[in-house]
Amino acid sequence: MAADASQPPAPKKSASRVEPRTLRGMQDHLPADAMQRQALIATLCPIAERFGFVPLETPVLEHLDTLVGAGGENANKELFRLFSPEEEPIAMRFDLTVPFARLLAQYPNELKPPFRRYAYGPVFRADKPGPGRFRQFTQFDFDAAGSADVAVDAEICALLCACMKALGVQGYRLDVNSRRMMDALLVRAGIAAVEGQKAVLRVIDKVGKIGLENMRRELGPGRIDESGDPIKGLGLDPETIARIEGFMAVRAEGRVALLDALRPFLPETKEGGEALEEMRELDANLRCLGLGDDAVVFDPALARGLEYYTGPVFEMKLPQAPQFGTVMAGGRYDGLVERFTPNALAATGASIGVDRLLAALAHFAGGELPRTATQVLVTVFKGVPKAKYLELASELRAAGINTEVFFGKKKAGITDQLAHANNCGIPVAIIAGEDELSRGEVAVKDLVAGAQAREGIADHEAFRAAGKAGQVTVQRQDLVATIRGMFSAR
Amino acid sequence: MAADASQPPAPKKSASRVEPRTLRGMQDHLPADAMQRQALIATLCPIAERFGFVPLETPVLEHLDTLVGAGGENANKELFRLFSPEEEPIAMRFDLTVPFARLLAQYPNELKPPFRRYAYGPVFRADKPGPGRFRQFTQFDFDAAGSADVAVDAEICALLCACMKALGVQGYRLDVNSRRMMDALLVRAGIAAVEGQKAVLRVIDKVGKIGLENMRRELGPGRIDESGDPIKGLGLDPETIARIEGFMAVRAEGRVALLDALRPFLPETKEGGEALEEMRELDANLRCLGLGDDAVVFDPALARGLEYYTGPVFEMKLPQAPQFGTVMAGGRYDGLVERFTPNALAATGASIGVDRLLAALAHFAGGELPRTATQVLVTVFKGVPKAKYLELASELRAAGINTEVFFGKKKAGITDQLAHANNCGIPVAIIAGEDELSRGEVAVKDLVAGAQAREGIADHEAFRAAGKAGQVTVQRQDLVATIRGMFSAR
Repeated sequence: MAADASQPPAPKKSASRVEPRTLRGMQDHLPADAMQRQALIATLCPIAERFGFVPLETPVLEHLDTLVGAGGENANKELFRLFSPEEEPIAMRFDLTVPFARLLAQYPNELKPPFRRYAYGPVFRADKPGPGRFRQFTQFDFDAAGSADVAVDAEICALLCACMKALGVQGYRLDVNSRRMMDALLVRAGIAAVEGQKAVLRVIDKVGKIGLENMRRELGPGRIDESGDPIKGLGLDPETIARIEGFMAVRAEGRVALLDALRPFLPETKEGGEALEEMRELDANLRCLGLGDDAVVFDPALARGLEYYTGPVFEMKLPQAPQFGTVMAGGRYDGLVERFTPNALAATGASIGVDRLLAALAHFAGGELPRTATQVLVTVFKGVPKAKYLELASELRAAGINTEVFFGKKKAGITDQLAHANNCGIPVAIIAGEDELSRGEVAVKDLVAGAQAREGIADHEAFRAAGKAGQVTVQRQDLVATIRGMFSAR
Repeated sequence: MAADASQPPAPKKSASRVEPRTLRGMQDHLPADAMQRQALIATLCPIAERFGFVPLETPVLEHLDTLVGAGGENANKELFRLFSPEEEPIAMRFDLTVPFARLLAQYPNELKPPFRRYAYGPVFRADKPGPGRFRQFTQFDFDAAGSADVAVDAEICALLCACMKALGVQGYRLDVNSRRMMDALLVRAGIAAVEGQKAVLRVIDKVGKIGLENMRRELGPGRIDESGDPIKGLGLDPETIARIEGFMAVRAEGRVALLDALRPFLPETKEGGEALEEMRELDANLRCLGLGDDAVVFDPALARGLEYYTGPVFEMKLPQAPQFGTVMAGGRYDGLVERFTPNALAATGASIGVDRLLAALAHFAGGELPRTATQVLVTVFKGVPKAKYLELASELRAAGINTEVFFGKKKAGITDQLAHANNCGIPVAIIAGEDELSRGEVAVKDLVAGAQAREGIADHEAFRAAGKAGQVTVQRQDLVATIRGMFSAR
């Protein structure tokens, strides 16, 4: 669980004391949450490498001109802007794709195309925070530069599906559409100018949020939103809007059948034909990568918010848990690198919304997430030098056992210390007072077994006795073997 | 290798094109560098967990008041400041310790002491960049809260040494001093006020940079620095300065002998006695954790720049490679959590300077770092549908072999494709034209063996022939086994 990002306003504080609080729209990741995030990254990196991707890392801060305009109007508005010590305007990155395009242009010799990289890290958008919507969130990106071949898009789709498989997610669905088909549709509908096309795509992209009726109004005369503000319409005529809606509404059994059904909406031009042909090829490549009509679905209603896409676009959905929205998304962006260099470079890629995906995984897992990797708590007794317990811990750690020595309040007795272990989810405790240590013995307590034995017991004495379940006293030299036995028995 | 952070000023650019450039003081991490960083993190996390630490993550941005004043004057000056969308003053974190203190205060129920956490991530200082000095750098921190027992400091020292061992570093040395001893020394020298003590420590901390003579002047009448600017002195009298210098200069064989030699410099007060006693206990605990006089050295000249330290302070040095400076550092900071809550909470910890440590590791490794995890490049032929190659790649990936299909320039022939593999460091290539595929065959080429066979051959024909070394043609169904054999033979 991420700690709640929305904090109450800070109460009046004393002169020297600062109210501890998280910035609006930001998240603190407490142990269970942070462990789950680490496990996700550890799962995704090897899959990226399985597909031939290598890691890259770029700084959080970029020159403002690197970022402004690269992602469209919304991305511009949502930039966290500041100044460098040299008073240059700078900003925090809003995605990992624009910095990747910068790198491709900046290091033509080190990053010779074809080049495929993965990257992950925090990105920042000064957006309105909401459920699952944060101002700092983590992206995990895969991108392949150097080829306009739609087979690379197919590989990106396969990679996204491989990630879902590796995470044990059942019933995921990757929706795919084609910006080239959309453009051909809009040309046929009489919208030839690129800016006009972009405006239409921006409205279409909102259909999931605002609904079909509001989309229709925003494409046409405009509308008044919930807050009473007017939203200017694009002023398209009803026939054009109907044509767009008709295209978006096409459904069919399977990807090839869908392409056949879309053909009448596209112009009989070279561009129209090529757009369709590319999608047919994508379908064939997907099939060779083992992705059938159930895993990857062509969806003519799909638009993506970012404006740099030029070919296929993708969105990973979880039909059983639609509340988590899109957990992965991407597409081809052949023009983006040209922002930084005259040498055009085709590229395609996708981004995993790590925060949303983790929320969905936690939802599927249902139960509690692990809160610690610590396996053993060494309890301490008054009067015994701490050094004795450090020696014990060193021995266990050398044997590869994750071990904490209890260093808390001086007055903490054995009950408090075992409560600490239970509270943290540490499964085994070692109990060794002066007597045990002088006899060369230690007691090892299986806290999980103890808790299970106590379950449902109301009688006080019986409860105490049951707590001894799973506790054994062993010779000091048998300690490691005993603990290993406890863990291998699980 | 990190890409060079210092960029030439951007040349005049065309209206629509943005010059690709890295912000001053920032680093782009290209593949070899990024892979080395990942491997380091993957080594450190399990060691932290071995010592009972659990992960936490906090946002990059914090309320300004959370950060200002927490790290002292320098940290204040070096903050990257900006405003939230709500126009609140905010800043980028300059370390991971202050956010940890905030969390301890903010989540008293979730993070009940004793609590040990590790964390890693970028931190930001608007400092003057220089060699090994960046404005964004990565820290990896371990901190333990909830006990003032010096045994916990001993555990932090053991953890730092365990990290060095796991990284295969020979001859590291952890220098340790005690703020309490320093404070006692200063009291004895007549400097009783905390602010005065802090000022002296700030000067002492600079001795490595400015030298003994300049330190002496800054403690006394002041000096003129290299740029001709006056630096105000603290105005201590020569006798006091001599006493401080005398303390700093004490050397002895072993930790206990050093403490004995320091005793005459400390006052015969409760504070003086306790400070010494604590260091004796630290020594005994270190010994029980297997840390002798060679690994951990008590150094009375050690001060740490940050002002929140209150007990033992640590610095990890590499005596064989002093140019990399301090690669890990930390100390006890019992007062820091009180900044955020009236409930005092003792804490100690250390931070690894990931960038410096990586530079040192690369230096020790000498040779080239790996640039890819990709094991096989599937080359492609004109006229063969790409889908055939995707099928081959899918098969290899399903067998756990990291595979890239060549998707580059359309005109790239086999020579270009093999050059790509060599350039990236991919060790094996698969060559399958129309003929081979129709016969159910593929050629597998060991590029490392090929390059070795060619070494030193000047004759053109012989060079070509030698290139065939390590190339075998196998049945399609034997492909995975053949490649596995190649890798297991290494």
